[in-house]
Amino acid sequence: MQNGSGPRKHTIAVQVENKFGVLSRVAGLFSARGYNIESLSVGETLDPSVSRMTLVVTGDEFVIEQVTKQLHKLIDVIKVSDLTDDDHVERELMLIRVNAEPQHREEILRTADIFRAKVVDVTPLSFTLEATGDAQKLEALVELLRPMGIQELVRTGKVAMARGPKTRARKAEVPKKVRVSEDPKVVGFAD
Amino acid sequence: MQNGSGPRKHTIAVQVENKFGVLSRVAGLFSARGYNIESLSVGETLDPSVSRMTLVVTGDEFVIEQVTKQLHKLIDVIKVSDLTDDDHVERELMLIRVNAEPQHREEILRTADIFRAKVVDVTPLSFTLEATGDAQKLEALVELLRPMGIQELVRTGKVAMARGPKTRARKAEVPKKVRVSEDPKVVGFAD
Repeated sequence: MQNGSGPRKHTIAVQVENKFGVLSRVAGLFSARGYNIESLSVGETLDPSVSRMTLVVTGDEFVIEQVTKQLHKLIDVIKVSDLTDDDHVERELMLIRVNAEPQHREEILRTADIFRAKVVDVTPLSFTLEATGDAQKLEALVELLRPMGIQELVRTGKVAMARGPKTRARKAEVPKKVRVSEDPKVVGFAD
Repeated sequence: MQNGSGPRKHTIAVQVENKFGVLSRVAGLFSARGYNIESLSVGETLDPSVSRMTLVVTGDEFVIEQVTKQLHKLIDVIKVSDLTDDDHVERELMLIRVNAEPQHREEILRTADIFRAKVVDVTPLSFTLEATGDAQKLEALVELLRPMGIQELVRTGKVAMARGPKTRARKAEVPKKVRVSEDPKVVGFAD
């Protein structure tokens, strides 16, 4: 894996207090340095007071490191991890509505099946599909559906998560707020 | 459906030029008025120069309307629609890593099956599942997995899309940039 200084895509996970204005401060930190956030998703975590953001930005190693250090300093930021070089799972969700002319309906359903996409809405004129996967898979599906006429498309932006416990042990330097069940019977080995 | 002035959750779709700083300007507009963005996802569209954001904010009708009007005025904002009262499909993706003690493995897989969640990573100690659905479905899954011990959880935030062509006809007041295939054989009824 290249660790040179050339710009490349970084996937950064940021845990923040779910407070007013945090999002625009985090986004502002990147834009103030001229970095465009290519994809961003913000969702709840187990703890309703904490949100987790996944950002994709293109930049060189050095500056990304600087920005993540500055993120750490922001009040309301709990944890920042650059998952780019870690072993991780990443996924994105896409909703896509395509023209469903009678002569294309069967092919659309066959394509959906191959990509394990679900049909979430049907009208006499359109199918809406829900697909998940990495960016490449979603783009391949878009290319196959394009000839039928795509009416609308929306993507969530990427979310990423480090793989199994192995990764956690390596990252001991950053204390991790692990949320295990309150149930005393559960073995919280994640600690 | 209530259209009173009480605060409630609004789902707002915003199409923006994929330019540097747009995201923090849009987020800033909400936080400047004291609105917390509860969920946000930003992803590409068919046109690489255009991104689409889906925001969830709680607020009363009047102020949400004011904010969307101000969004319209922002340079780089192409289109804003409040989908809340429109017939629409909404989905969110969640990755969840749970403890997989031998005595729980079968039950986790059975639960995954019922929720049509996919197993995307397996280690001797954990399963990582990918699930999609609305917030209620995802929360129900979390509750079922909680007793096994949840190691980590990440959600994309909601994406939403208006249902079939019916909706489009009703919204004639906002000109819609419909992206249909370049292929001249395709009937672009979406216009």
